[in-house]
Amino acid sequence: MKRTVKMLVCILVSAVCFPLLNLTAGDETPIFGFTAESSRAERQWEEKFKEIPKQENLRAYMERLSARPHNVGSPYDKENAEWIAAKFKEFGLETQIENFDVLFPTPKERLIELVGGAPYFKAKLQEPALPEDPTSNQTAEQLPTYNAYSIDGDVTGPLVYVNYGVQEDYEELERRGISVKGAIVIARYGHAWRGIKPLVAGEHGAIGCIIYSDPRDDGYTSGDTFPKGAYRPKDGVQRGSVQDSAVFMGDPLTPGYGATPDAKRVAIKDAQTLTKIPVLPISYADAQPLLEAMSGPVAPRMWRGGLPITYHLGPGPAKVHLKVASNWDIKRLYDVIGKIPGSTNPDEWVIRGNHHDAWVNGAEDPISGMVAVMEEARAMGELAKQGWKPKRTLIYCAWDGEEPGLLGSTEWVETHVEELKKHAVVYINSDSNGRGFLGFEGSQTLEKFMNDVARDVQDPETKLSVWKRSQLEAIRHAGSAEDRREARTRSDLRLDMLGGGSDHAPFNNFAGVAALGIGFGGETGGGIYHSIYDDFYWYTHFGDTDFSYGKALSQVGGTAMMRLADADLLPFEFGDFADDVQMYVKEVKKFAGEQQEEVTERNRQIDEGAYTATADPKQTYVPPSKEEVPPFINFAPLDNAVEKLNKSAEEYKKALNAANANGGAILAKASLGTLNEMLIQSEHKLTTPEGLPGRFWYKHELYAPGAYTGYAAKAIPAVREALEQKKWKQAEEAAARVARVLQNEATLISEAAAKLNAQSR
Amino acid sequence: MKRTVKMLVCILVSAVCFPLLNLTAGDETPIFGFTAESSRAERQWEEKFKEIPKQENLRAYMERLSARPHNVGSPYDKENAEWIAAKFKEFGLETQIENFDVLFPTPKERLIELVGGAPYFKAKLQEPALPEDPTSNQTAEQLPTYNAYSIDGDVTGPLVYVNYGVQEDYEELERRGISVKGAIVIARYGHAWRGIKPLVAGEHGAIGCIIYSDPRDDGYTSGDTFPKGAYRPKDGVQRGSVQDSAVFMGDPLTPGYGATPDAKRVAIKDAQTLTKIPVLPISYADAQPLLEAMSGPVAPRMWRGGLPITYHLGPGPAKVHLKVASNWDIKRLYDVIGKIPGSTNPDEWVIRGNHHDAWVNGAEDPISGMVAVMEEARAMGELAKQGWKPKRTLIYCAWDGEEPGLLGSTEWVETHVEELKKHAVVYINSDSNGRGFLGFEGSQTLEKFMNDVARDVQDPETKLSVWKRSQLEAIRHAGSAEDRREARTRSDLRLDMLGGGSDHAPFNNFAGVAALGIGFGGETGGGIYHSIYDDFYWYTHFGDTDFSYGKALSQVGGTAMMRLADADLLPFEFGDFADDVQMYVKEVKKFAGEQQEEVTERNRQIDEGAYTATADPKQTYVPPSKEEVPPFINFAPLDNAVEKLNKSAEEYKKALNAANANGGAILAKASLGTLNEMLIQSEHKLTTPEGLPGRFWYKHELYAPGAYTGYAAKAIPAVREALEQKKWKQAEEAAARVARVLQNEATLISEAAAKLNAQSR
Repeated sequence: MKRTVKMLVCILVSAVCFPLLNLTAGDETPIFGFTAESSRAERQWEEKFKEIPKQENLRAYMERLSARPHNVGSPYDKENAEWIAAKFKEFGLETQIENFDVLFPTPKERLIELVGGAPYFKAKLQEPALPEDPTSNQTAEQLPTYNAYSIDGDVTGPLVYVNYGVQEDYEELERRGISVKGAIVIARYGHAWRGIKPLVAGEHGAIGCIIYSDPRDDGYTSGDTFPKGAYRPKDGVQRGSVQDSAVFMGDPLTPGYGATPDAKRVAIKDAQTLTKIPVLPISYADAQPLLEAMSGPVAPRMWRGGLPITYHLGPGPAKVHLKVASNWDIKRLYDVIGKIPGSTNPDEWVIRGNHHDAWVNGAEDPISGMVAVMEEARAMGELAKQGWKPKRTLIYCAWDGEEPGLLGSTEWVETHVEELKKHAVVYINSDSNGRGFLGFEGSQTLEKFMNDVARDVQDPETKLSVWKRSQLEAIRHAGSAEDRREARTRSDLRLDMLGGGSDHAPFNNFAGVAALGIGFGGETGGGIYHSIYDDFYWYTHFGDTDFSYGKALSQVGGTAMMRLADADLLPFEFGDFADDVQMYVKEVKKFAGEQQEEVTERNRQIDEGAYTATADPKQTYVPPSKEEVPPFINFAPLDNAVEKLNKSAEEYKKALNAANANGGAILAKASLGTLNEMLIQSEHKLTTPEGLPGRFWYKHELYAPGAYTGYAAKAIPAVREALEQKKWKQAEEAAARVARVLQNEATLISEAAAKLNAQSR
Repeated sequence: MKRTVKMLVCILVSAVCFPLLNLTAGDETPIFGFTAESSRAERQWEEKFKEIPKQENLRAYMERLSARPHNVGSPYDKENAEWIAAKFKEFGLETQIENFDVLFPTPKERLIELVGGAPYFKAKLQEPALPEDPTSNQTAEQLPTYNAYSIDGDVTGPLVYVNYGVQEDYEELERRGISVKGAIVIARYGHAWRGIKPLVAGEHGAIGCIIYSDPRDDGYTSGDTFPKGAYRPKDGVQRGSVQDSAVFMGDPLTPGYGATPDAKRVAIKDAQTLTKIPVLPISYADAQPLLEAMSGPVAPRMWRGGLPITYHLGPGPAKVHLKVASNWDIKRLYDVIGKIPGSTNPDEWVIRGNHHDAWVNGAEDPISGMVAVMEEARAMGELAKQGWKPKRTLIYCAWDGEEPGLLGSTEWVETHVEELKKHAVVYINSDSNGRGFLGFEGSQTLEKFMNDVARDVQDPETKLSVWKRSQLEAIRHAGSAEDRREARTRSDLRLDMLGGGSDHAPFNNFAGVAALGIGFGGETGGGIYHSIYDDFYWYTHFGDTDFSYGKALSQVGGTAMMRLADADLLPFEFGDFADDVQMYVKEVKKFAGEQQEEVTERNRQIDEGAYTATADPKQTYVPPSKEEVPPFINFAPLDNAVEKLNKSAEEYKKALNAANANGGAILAKASLGTLNEMLIQSEHKLTTPEGLPGRFWYKHELYAPGAYTGYAAKAIPAVREALEQKKWKQAEEAAARVARVLQNEATLISEAAAKLNAQSR
C-alpha cells in the first residue's frame, strides 16, 4: 500500500543511553537477552541461517506471484494464496488459510470530460500495454484505474487546482479569495495519503475530486520514464484506496471486529469510511488538457509541477463532468498463516508478515517484500529440520487485502485480538523492498534490539554492516550539527515512529502489539507505483535486479525473528525508549510555543496592516483574520511522567546489568516466565481502551498516523492533533491522559526491574 | 542591463542608531542637513515639484523612444540621443552630447546544430514577430540573438549540462565524474551574471558555451507567456554581454581611461575582457532538442528545469557544432549630459542618470527608467523657471552603451574622473522600473538620507509612504525573528550594497563617488528581458501600465536630487554606516569560521568513509579530496577599525545635534564649505588607488560585484574573495588594508565632527 521503506532515520537526538554493544559475529559479548552460553548457540544458528536464503529463489517466487494481476477478489489472488500456503507447508510450517469477507468496490463506470466552452476532451483513463513489457497487456484481468471506496457520483463543476490538497493548501486558496464550494478539485498525488485529498476537499465544499500524478513528482522530471527508465510514463496512473482511515482501518462494514463470514455488517449506506465525494485518479497525459483549460491566478511557486504549462488556480473556466460508479461487492480474503510452534514457550508468538495482494501485478508492491518473507520462512523450516528448536512460536503471514485498507491483517487482528494481546511478542512487517538503506521504524522499546540486528547483517553493496551504512548516511545527511553529533555518538540510531499505510497498523495501533517495519530503499526510485507497470519486467530492470537486497531483507527479518524466538529474556529495552519519549514531549511543547508565537505575530501584522499593504492590489488578496492567541497548556503531567520513565528505565538497566554479570550467570538460572509476560505487556500499556479522541480504532497513545496527513505518524497524537485543531481544553486533558499512560508504563518497567532484581538475589 | 530593482531590503540587523525622524510633509522637524528655515522653503519647493510629473508624458516619451530598435551603433540610438538632448534643452537644461568610440561586435555568423548520431537539428536562433505586437516585426533593425564580446569560434564537441554554470555546479559534476574538457557546455540563464558562465566553463576546459532561458526560470512555469501573459515565449531569447567584467568594465580597448576619439587603443587580439570560448544564447524551444539528445546521469534535483523532459548531464552523446563570428567594429556612443548650474555651490555636482540604449526596442530596459528621469529633468527645469535656485549643480545624464558593458557611463567617468573626485557629491542611478516596492540600494553614508526621501513620497497603490510599504514588506517577509525585530525597531531600513550591472558602477567602484540605485519592482514579473518583445506593447500591457510608478520614480529621484542640491550641510550620516560596516565585518568573520567548520567536517567524513559508503554503487561517484583546514585569520585590525568608526560616528552625531539645536541656529550661521568638501570625500576615502587584488578598476574596498557572481555585491571583497579562493595570506593582508581604509574614514569623520563643533563655538 505505502512504501514503508524510508531513506533514513533523520530525527536523532543527543543522549547516550546505553553502553555501546557493537556486536559482530565473532564477538564474545552476549546478544542482548541471552546468556553467554545461549548467545553462543544462537550465533551459530544465525550464521547457519544467513547462508540459506538464495537470490534465485526470490526471483523465481516473484516471477510466479506477479505473473498475473492479483487484486482482492481476482482468481490469481486466490491462486497465489494457495500457492504460498503450499510453499509454507513444503517449508515445514503448519499452515492454514483464514478467510474474511469484505466490502471491495470495483469500477463499473468512470468518466472525466471537459464540458461547456473549452474544446471537448475526454480523459483516456487507460494505461497502454508496452511491447517490451510482457505482462502489461493482460487487460482482461487488470483492475481499471480508480480509487477504491470513492462513493458513486455524477457531478459537473468548474475545476480548482488545490496542489497536494491538504489543509494548508486551502488556506493559500483562501488568501487568494478562491473557494472550492460547488467545484471539482484537481489535486496532485503526494505530500499526504491520497485519502486525505477527497476528505479535505469535501470538508471545504467541493463536489468531486480528481487526483493526478504530476511528472515533477514521479514522472519525467524525476528520471527517464518507463520503459526507458524507472519513472511514470505519461499514461501511468496510481490506483489506490481513498477510504477515510482517520477513525478506523479495515473492512468498512465491520468496524473494530473481524469480518468473518457470519459477522454482523453495517449497511453500505451507513459505512463510515467511504468518501463523501466521488474521486478518480488520472495520468498526467489526462491531466494536462484539464489544467490547460483553467485560468484564474497563477498557482503559487511551490505548487507548480513539471507539465509544460502555466498552472492556474481556477475556478474554471474549464468545467468538468466526473462520473464514478462501482460494483459494491463483498469479496473473499485469503490470509495465509504458517506456524513453527515454540518448543518451550509456545504461547509467546513472534509474528512476521507481508501482504500478497496487489493493485495489478505488483512485483515491487508487495511481492518484493513477500518473496523475502517466503525465503525467510523457508530458512526457518530448514533450520528446524537441522535441529533448531525455537523457544517461542514463529508465525509467518501473507496478508490479503492490504491495498484497499489493510483488510486482511486488520480483520485477522480484530478476530484474534484477545489472544494477540496475551501472546504476541512482536509483529515484524515488510511491504516491498529495494536497494539502499535499511528503514528503521518501530516501537522504541525495540530500538536497541533492532540496532543490534542491523549491526549483524551485511549490506550487499558496501559489505559494511547494514547499521554502519545507515549511521554513515545519518552523519552524511544530518539536518544540523546536533543531529550529526548524535548520529556519531548515540549508541543506537533512533527508530522512526510507525505511521499508517501497512499491516503493522492493526497490530500496533489497534491491538497494542510492539511492532517493527523493515525494508531497504533509497537507491531505487521509480514511478510505477500502483500501475500496470509495477511488474516483473520493471522490477528486474530497475528494482533490486539481482535480489541481493531481497536476500538481505530475509537476513534482517530472520535474524530478528530468531532472536525474539530464542531470547532468554525478551530484548525490550527502556533507556532508548525513555529518551525518545522525552524527545516527543519536547517536540509537542515546542509546537505549542510556536503556535502561540505564530498567532501573536500574525495578529500583530494584521494590526500593522502588513498583509494588505504588501499585497499586489491588481490581484485578489484576502488577509487572514485575527485569532485568539493559544493559551498555555499544562504540560507538567507529561514532564513528570517522563521523569518517572527515565528513572524506571535506569532501574531496569541496573537490574539487567546485574543479571548479565558473569556471562549472564543469574539470567541462566532465573525463572523468566512472568518477567517476559510483563515485558510483552509493555507495549499494550501504551494504549487506552477508548483510543484517541474520535478515533476509537487508534488505541496507541504514543503515536498514530495523522488524521489529516494519513501515512506520516504523529507523536503523542491526542495532544498534538488537539493543538492543531485549536481544541485547547482537549489538548490539556489529553496531556494528562497520556501522562497517566506513561506513568503506568513506568510502573510496569519498575516492577519488571524489581522482578529481575528478585531473580538476582 | 541588469534589473536593479530588487524586491526588498532583507538583510536587516538590530541596532537603533539614530533618533527616529518620521518626517511627513507638514512635519516641523527640519529635513536632515537643513535649518528650520531652509527646510520650510525646501518643503514648499518639493511639494510644488511632486505635482509636476505627468503619467501621460512618461507614456509618450516611452512610445517615442521604444518605437524602433536602438542598440549601440544603430540609427535610432543616435536619433534617440538627439531627441533626448533636444528635450533636455527644451526643459531648460544646458545640454550637450559627448561621444566615445568603442569596440562593439555584432553578429556575422551564428550556428548551432546537432551532429553525429542524434537526429539532425539546427537551432532557429530567431524570435518570431507576433501579430498583436506592432514593433516585433522590425526585423531589419533588430540585433540578432547573440552574446556580445563572445570571441569568434567554430567548435564541435559533446554537450554537458552545467545547470547555472557557476563554480559549485562544476563541483557537483566532479562528484559524478563528469568533466567538461573538450565539451560544449549548455547552461541555463540565472543565478549569476551571464558573463560568468563562459568564464567558468572555459576555466574548466570547455570549448564552447550555450546559454538558454529555462521555462522554469522566466517562461511558462513562472506565468502565462507573451503575448497572453508577461513571460518568455518558447522562441524568446535573452541577448546580453558576456564580457569578463571581473577586472574592469567599459570599452575593452581602453581599460581605465576614456575612449575618446583620439584615445590610444589596445589591439583587439589583446583585449582582456573578451571571452576565451565562443558563446551563444538560445530559446527554450531551441534548447529542448539539444537537452533531449543527451544521456548520462540524471541531473541533480535542483538542476531540473521546466521542460517536459528528463534532464541529463551528458557528456553527449549529442554532439554540437557551434559557430560564432562577429563584425568587430568600432561604434560611436552618444551620452546626453544636461545641466542646471548651482547658484551658490556650482562646483558641487549632484548627478542623475539612466541609460538610453537597449538590446532591441527596450521599453522596460531601460526606457521605463529613462522616461522617469526625463520627466524629473523637465520638473527641475520647470521649478527653475518658477524661481527655484538650487545651491548645487544638477547634472542629468542619458547614457549610451550600457548594455554591452556600461560603456557610455564608464568612458565618461574615466574621462572626467579627476573632476568627479573633486566635485561629484552623489550619483543616483536608475535602470528600468516596474510596479511594487522601492529598491533600497546605495552607499550606506546615504542610508538615513534615502530613508527620509522614501518617507516623503507616496506609494501610488496603497497611498502609504513608499518607505512604510517597504518596511511592512520587510516585516512581513523577514527571514528570521531577529530580522523582523530590526525591521520594526531600527529607524532606517538598511540600504543594500550596490552590485554590478548598471551605470552606478563606474561612479562608485571606479571613481569612489557616493551612489544610489533607485527603481520600483516586485509586482511586475516577466520574461521579455533583452528580447524583441521588451517593447511598448508589452510594457503597456504587463509593466507599470498607467505609469503611476514611473511618476513615483520621478518623485523619489527628484526629491533626492533637490535635497542634495539644496542642503546646507550635505546629508551624509555615519551612524547607520558604521552599523552596516560592523555587520559586514561580522559576516566575513562568520564566513571564515564556517569555512573552517565545513572543511573540518568534510575531512572527517572522508576519513569515516561516509562519502563512499552512502553513494549508490551503481552510479559513478567521486568523493571529494581532503583539504587543509583554513587557518585562523587576524581580523583584529578590522574589529579595531569598526570600534573607531563607531566612535567617530558618535562624535559626528553629537556635533550635529548641537548644530541642529534651536532650529539649526548654528547651522544657519556656519561656514559649511570646507565641511561639505570633507563630506564629499567620505566615499572616496573608501577606495584605494591600486584597487582590489587583480581587479584594478574596482577601487572601492567596502563592496564590489563578485568576480565569480557578477551582479551581486560582496562586502569587503578583498578579504571575502581571498577566503573563497583559499588565499589565506592575501586574506590577512587584505583585512589589514581594509582596516587602514576604515581607520582613515573614521579619522575623516572625526575631523568633520571637530570642524562642525568649531562652527558651534
